[in-house]
Amino acid sequence: MKSGRRVYINGELFPEAEAKISVFDSCVLIGDAIQEVTRTFRHKLFRWDDHRDRFYRSVKAARLAFEMPPEELDRVTQEFLECNLHTLAENEEGGVGHLASRGVMGLVLPPTRTSFVMYFFPLTNGQRKTAHYYNVGRHVVTPPTRHSHPLTLDPKIKYRSRLHFSIADAEARLVDPEAIPLMLDLDGNLAEGTGWNFFLVRNGELLTPSGRNILAGISRKTTLELARKHGLPAFERDLQPYDALTADEAFITATSLCLMPVTRFNGEPVGNGKPGPVTRQLMSWWKEYLNFDFEAQAKQFLGM
Amino acid sequence: MKSGRRVYINGELFPEAEAKISVFDSCVLIGDAIQEVTRTFRHKLFRWDDHRDRFYRSVKAARLAFEMPPEELDRVTQEFLECNLHTLAENEEGGVGHLASRGVMGLVLPPTRTSFVMYFFPLTNGQRKTAHYYNVGRHVVTPPTRHSHPLTLDPKIKYRSRLHFSIADAEARLVDPEAIPLMLDLDGNLAEGTGWNFFLVRNGELLTPSGRNILAGISRKTTLELARKHGLPAFERDLQPYDALTADEAFITATSLCLMPVTRFNGEPVGNGKPGPVTRQLMSWWKEYLNFDFEAQAKQFLGM
Amino acid sequence: MKSGRRVYINGELFPEAEAKISVFDSCVLIGDAIQEVTRTFRHKLFRWDDHRDRFYRSVKAARLAFEMPPEELDRVTQEFLECNLHTLAENEEGGVGHLASRGVMGLVLPPTRTSFVMYFFPLTNGQRKTAHYYNVGRHVVTPPTRHSHPLTLDPKIKYRSRLHFSIADAEARLVDPEAIPLMLDLDGNLAEGTGWNFFLVRNGELLTPSGRNILAGISRKTTLELARKHGLPAFERDLQPYDALTADEAFITATSLCLMPVTRFNGEPVGNGKPGPVTRQLMSWWKEYLNFDFEAQAKQFLGM
Amino acid sequence: MKSGRRVYINGELFPEAEAKISVFDSCVLIGDAIQEVTRTFRHKLFRWDDHRDRFYRSVKAARLAFEMPPEELDRVTQEFLECNLHTLAENEEGGVGHLASRGVMGLVLPPTRTSFVMYFFPLTNGQRKTAHYYNVGRHVVTPPTRHSHPLTLDPKIKYRSRLHFSIADAEARLVDPEAIPLMLDLDGNLAEGTGWNFFLVRNGELLTPSGRNILAGISRKTTLELARKHGLPAFERDLQPYDALTADEAFITATSLCLMPVTRFNGEPVGNGKPGPVTRQLMSWWKEYLNFDFEAQAKQFLGM
Amino acid sequence: MKSGRRVYINGELFPEAEAKISVFDSCVLIGDAIQEVTRTFRHKLFRWDDHRDRFYRSVKAARLAFEMPPEELDRVTQEFLECNLHTLAENEEGGVGHLASRGVMGLVLPPTRTSFVMYFFPLTNGQRKTAHYYNVGRHVVTPPTRHSHPLTLDPKIKYRSRLHFSIADAEARLVDPEAIPLMLDLDGNLAEGTGWNFFLVRNGELLTPSGRNILAGISRKTTLELARKHGLPAFERDLQPYDALTADEAFITATSLCLMPVTRFNGEPVGNGKPGPVTRQLMSWWKEYLNFDFEAQAKQFLGM
Amino acid sequence: MKSGRRVYINGELFPEAEAKISVFDSCVLIGDAIQEVTRTFRHKLFRWDDHRDRFYRSVKAARLAFEMPPEELDRVTQEFLECNLHTLAENEEGGVGHLASRGVMGLVLPPTRTSFVMYFFPLTNGQRKTAHYYNVGRHVVTPPTRHSHPLTLDPKIKYRSRLHFSIADAEARLVDPEAIPLMLDLDGNLAEGTGWNFFLVRNGELLTPSGRNILAGISRKTTLELARKHGLPAFERDLQPYDALTADEAFITATSLCLMPVTRFNGEPVGNGKPGPVTRQLMSWWKEYLNFDFEAQAKQFLGM
Repeated sequence: MKSGRRVYINGELFPEAEAKISVFDSCVLIGDAIQEVTRTFRHKLFRWDDHRDRFYRSVKAARLAFEMPPEELDRVTQEFLECNLHTLAENEEGGVGHLASRGVMGLVLPPTRTSFVMYFFPLTNGQRKTAHYYNVGRHVVTPPTRHSHPLTLDPKIKYRSRLHFSIADAEARLVDPEAIPLMLDLDGNLAEGTGWNFFLVRNGELLTPSGRNILAGISRKTTLELARKHGLPAFERDLQPYDALTADEAFITATSLCLMPVTRFNGEPVGNGKPGPVTRQLMSWWKEYLNFDFEAQAKQFLGM
Repeated sequence: MKSGRRVYINGELFPEAEAKISVFDSCVLIGDAIQEVTRTFRHKLFRWDDHRDRFYRSVKAARLAFEMPPEELDRVTQEFLECNLHTLAENEEGGVGHLASRGVMGLVLPPTRTSFVMYFFPLTNGQRKTAHYYNVGRHVVTPPTRHSHPLTLDPKIKYRSRLHFSIADAEARLVDPEAIPLMLDLDGNLAEGTGWNFFLVRNGELLTPSGRNILAGISRKTTLELARKHGLPAFERDLQPYDALTADEAFITATSLCLMPVTRFNGEPVGNGKPGPVTRQLMSWWKEYLNFDFEAQAKQFLGM
Repeated sequence: MKSGRRVYINGELFPEAEAKISVFDSCVLIGDAIQEVTRTFRHKLFRWDDHRDRFYRSVKAARLAFEMPPEELDRVTQEFLECNLHTLAENEEGGVGHLASRGVMGLVLPPTRTSFVMYFFPLTNGQRKTAHYYNVGRHVVTPPTRHSHPLTLDPKIKYRSRLHFSIADAEARLVDPEAIPLMLDLDGNLAEGTGWNFFLVRNGELLTPSGRNILAGISRKTTLELARKHGLPAFERDLQPYDALTADEAFITATSLCLMPVTRFNGEPVGNGKPGPVTRQLMSWWKEYLNFDFEAQAKQFLGM
Repeated sequence: MKSGRRVYINGELFPEAEAKISVFDSCVLIGDAIQEVTRTFRHKLFRWDDHRDRFYRSVKAARLAFEMPPEELDRVTQEFLECNLHTLAENEEGGVGHLASRGVMGLVLPPTRTSFVMYFFPLTNGQRKTAHYYNVGRHVVTPPTRHSHPLTLDPKIKYRSRLHFSIADAEARLVDPEAIPLMLDLDGNLAEGTGWNFFLVRNGELLTPSGRNILAGISRKTTLELARKHGLPAFERDLQPYDALTADEAFITATSLCLMPVTRFNGEPVGNGKPGPVTRQLMSWWKEYLNFDFEAQAKQFLGM
Repeated sequence: MKSGRRVYINGELFPEAEAKISVFDSCVLIGDAIQEVTRTFRHKLFRWDDHRDRFYRSVKAARLAFEMPPEELDRVTQEFLECNLHTLAENEEGGVGHLASRGVMGLVLPPTRTSFVMYFFPLTNGQRKTAHYYNVGRHVVTPPTRHSHPLTLDPKIKYRSRLHFSIADAEARLVDPEAIPLMLDLDGNLAEGTGWNFFLVRNGELLTPSGRNILAGISRKTTLELARKHGLPAFERDLQPYDALTADEAFITATSLCLMPVTRFNGEPVGNGKPGPVTRQLMSWWKEYLNFDFEAQAKQFLGM
Repeated sequence: MKSGRRVYINGELFPEAEAKISVFDSCVLIGDAIQEVTRTFRHKLFRWDDHRDRFYRSVKAARLAFEMPPEELDRVTQEFLECNLHTLAENEEGGVGHLASRGVMGLVLPPTRTSFVMYFFPLTNGQRKTAHYYNVGRHVVTPPTRHSHPLTLDPKIKYRSRLHFSIADAEARLVDPEAIPLMLDLDGNLAEGTGWNFFLVRNGELLTPSGRNILAGISRKTTLELARKHGLPAFERDLQPYDALTADEAFITATSLCLMPVTRFNGEPVGNGKPGPVTRQLMSWWKEYLNFDFEAQAKQFLGM
């Protein structure tokens, strides 16, 4: 089993092309699953503890019967990573995805209590397509579709029931094929992207939507910690489109890309339309903190 | 391929135990899928046209690239039904499920445009467990979890992103292991169950939540048509828990069970706590309309 | 004063280039004004009575001290029209605008109780730019900006405080330079455009947003009357983007254009992407009712 | 041009009585304009930089094409002030208003890109009418009309579409001809007045509505800065009518009056119904900060 | 026991001055009670059946353990009425109040399951003070306080937890000592008064707030029935302050007064500020229906 | 009058069984009353000043005409306590309740301006039933019923209109006969219990719902003060059911019990399902602060 990436499904490893799950699983029939995605730096998982703890919080809030204890999850995750690391080139980094569902529903097959899947992917493909945005910044658009209300699907659960994420992606592309959507919550506050958090800089302060209506990412947390450590005032607050439109700078954070500038918002330039100095400073602090130049690592694959 | 039920996946038929889909499909990774479920009476699909039209509306609203034209969908559905019908005993009925997703996501495997799955199941299992409720009625409970807002996941799309349905089911069982949840919308109006619609009877009028915030089921539509045909006044209206608590009668409608009495609501008896005369009358009108005693058919399997 | 169009300002007539109002008027300083716009057919005002009555309702709801009695308003409006009609070619039609404000605010000049303005404009310019949409239909987009809440600025008042209309226009153009915005209300229901009402056709029924959150236009009212007169079922109802996306047909109504097809909604074709048969039928009924081919009249100026 | 106050309109100066703008300007036809008002102390503009920066944020959020660069705006504003200062007596102070609109709309006249107006007014008139409230305090009333939602007209834009401000003024006068309205937001939180911000004092703490739903005034900002500088705890928070009714003290802040006590709220005395000691203290700190007794300057004109 | 009015408390009759209830009763300690008030015409209860049925719905929705069966309630109500009727002069009418609480709470005394109170009062006092409004109409004001949300205290329950009613009364009197408050619901729709329902007349149609957020009174129901019987179009609908401000006529309905004109709304005259012809017509239909001139009966006591 | 507990009603003392109030009092007829409950430690009132100040804030916000000055209220409260203390055994503690209403309504009896009641009760009964929860923790459930909106009945007023509290209690018991309800506000945030506040512990931080939508209890305030004094980070914040479900620990605070662990939430264990170390620590700090072991005092009566 050395030759290719493997997928873990309920205790067994499969080559990717054969990594399949019953169509009677609750994750297929009703999108009833929770997840985590954790990346590597120098082939080691980044803040796995934070991801693991959030995974168990999602399990509990989703009332899933996932019974593997944390220590065992640590172990199988590490083993799974190791069995896949050899597929990365030395200059590549990867991500591990975890998914847990309520298992096979008893419609026609005998029901199971849970399904548990782990998969591994190199970041390279994504970096190839997006690393140039470290230079030019992203265009962020607020789509008509709104993030889920905490009483429906609490965004603090890292859930898989994300049809609205796909619709929001499509809506953002109506404005600009390269745009990415920043969903508002139902009250009109900025919430989060489809897999990333949003920050803005105004008068030397760092502002980001409060944790009430969003999945508060580990990269977001890292960014706030770095700002506070270096004395940059940073606040969580209800923000509206006005705040993003009139910000001095803006950026997003996400597991796969750490921190990336935003230079347009709803068709208008943010500040002078270029990545700003505070954004650049935070990227430096990230690199120093990681002792790893995530930006240079990503840019290696540009245009390849 | 005569010996067992078959599942259709992207053009091919599989035995159920082998009917699997890539874990990199969008329906697994992000619950990004839409669906239909259509049942048979006397081994013929019931109001397939209505289901098919709703399926295409869901496709469009979800911005899926499902490109099979309606006539072909009619044909493959009919063929799929026929290839499975032989697995039903003569006194059994079945259901056909349709599911369409955005296909394999290009994380590690080459992306596809859509996935399309059909599956078949006998109603017998469900009938075994629930047919006695035709006599004693169901207990309906309003759980803390709320139905999705039309701006997030419009309930008029028959979507698969239903983690909140599973959580609502678990919450209802906290009150009574046999209870089923009637979700409220975010404004506090009665919305729908996790796969069924709700009706109540008050002063000789039939009332059901308006179609704004719910998936308006085909069985709901049939019930409204039958009421109007027979001169029973029937209205769609915003209703609150008060209305259900103080109703004379209540019942639910769903594809698999047509119409079934409700005799408790949030722990209190509805009316006198027994299935009511208007409910019984509607069941009769259904049977006459179908020329089929759905209740007797289901009760055959009780206790088996 | 025969040679050009005239503007009426507080009892006097001015050539357009000289038609000015004090920058200390409340309509300039705080956008504190209400209005009407009424068009001609064959150089006669269309349903002036309806417009006049709505004007006085706006006056009252805005608590303006507009004291001219209705009969006098009828008279000065008619006189004003007549003094401008000679500027229209025979095949042209025009519109009369009425505007009333709270008058000069006493910041530096002596305050007045109200200002009252009437202006006249040929429809020709607008028809030149938009008459081709009678053939190809408009693209309607839901912008991030929402219509005003009845407790803030009740849309049933035809008010001038419309900065949000301008912003919505700009937002729609981000999606498509030719798109026009259909604002949602704060609950996510379809409301109205920036000067027009929206209708859709589904399963042979005509549906339009209810009058609660919109300015219910005279052309909307005419369309509903024509539908009912001809036996086409027509309903006012809370509608959501799903309804527009999955409609069979759609169109808009407005004073200047009567009724015009909509063929795209949020980037997707409506129905088959062409003006539909019910829309065409309603246009015919309009022409018959008016005894005037508004479409042909408008198309005369295309490309000129 | 020495003899009287002048108004600046699109690059030209006019005597006030001749300072007029086309009725076809967007600020007249659709209230589509943004603004600033900046006052003088000792004939010098107070915190012009803050006003100018907010002006440009309003321009951007309103998507206006106002193209004059900030340095030039500084210059023309200063020149405009100087050309009007001679009209003030030495003991008088004045204000400069800035207004930018989308310019003449192309209905009948050739469209322009923007209109830009500056006007000047002595504070004397207003002081004559209101300076006695420094002694007795104002009566603040919450009217039925609500402040605009950030998704409709974000209050953080200093917009001119203020019909609701006029209606709120009229509603407050129903309770008391001398009362001024404090609008609630749509959720029922205290928001702002029609041109002023609200503060209350409770248990030695200063509380003011958070900046989410209001125009955060420069005088409000100055007040918070002074409180913090002098060690008075000051917080921005969601507040409700209960908080104002049960406060120990209350006051308002505004450009023209700096800080003025509030002694009645919705018909009830605030605290003991007299201006409170913390309010008085803040007025002292303002005077010290300004090195200017704004209260005495205003009271000179009382009864004149 | 012939000499005076009696109050019924838990099976016993008391003179009014001695009619007291334990301060440990839940209706005192937590306002935890429901009620009805039914009036007489010619000394007979009006539509007692409707009141009795609503009483039992309130009992159920409030989850009270009120166990007297309906037939017995009919009987004791009739007996109670009869034992009090002798205290009315022949030209007077009266009202019977019913109140049920959860009984004595077990804080210090032994708990009981329920308390049940009936009281009787002549309408004369109220008529003395308000009968002149049949001529001049009432002034209705929308107070800041909002009606309770159905998820908190469903207004369809005739509940006693009415502190907000008292506060709304006080707020209305701030505008006009004779004004009565029409509460809005939390969405800004007209709801109901503190014991009465609201109607308006527009273009020959009768409109009243829908039954969702209000206690739909028996007099309201009677009015709708009379309108429909006589061919006056009548609709239940979400209405806003605009609708009341711009109505042609308005009136209120209540048990004690049947139907009474409204001639001012939020300080403005309704229509021409006089009771309107449709209102007068409805009063006539009421009198004909009752075969009783409720207005003349009330006016007898004016000024006495 | 030495032999038993006394109740104070409008200036007079009564034995409990005779402590009654007119059924025509506004607190009976419309639940129109406000209240306080203050307990003793070592037979002395705990933080009476805080309770008294809140009582007067409630009086003002409810617009009650309660005219006794604070010093007199202090005096009569102390006297009332002293006249009842002799009824406590030495190891018992008690509570004093204050209630003020709008007095007798003038329906049939002469109206009065206010009623004022004080009652006294030993804590012993309650302790007998609940002291074992100090060991095992309580089960907290979120019921369908929501807390009142600040615009309806501001929870910051300690009001008596609490029918919804009783209904919430009944709803919680549907899940578990021993469960107590934690009401959400209408936006879905955790609010408060029916007489207690909620806290949770997460990652070493103490979190409690913000004071906007709740009655901020004196025990809650004491707990926050103790946490801050001892360096435990403590924050007021909008919290949702997710936060409680995934907390490390939780507890409630109330006048009668100080601080008590919560070990189940909506059917799931909180943390490991046992009272947590931070909770225990806070209980210790409370005991130290009081110099009184409230837990031991309560447990004396267990099982008696």
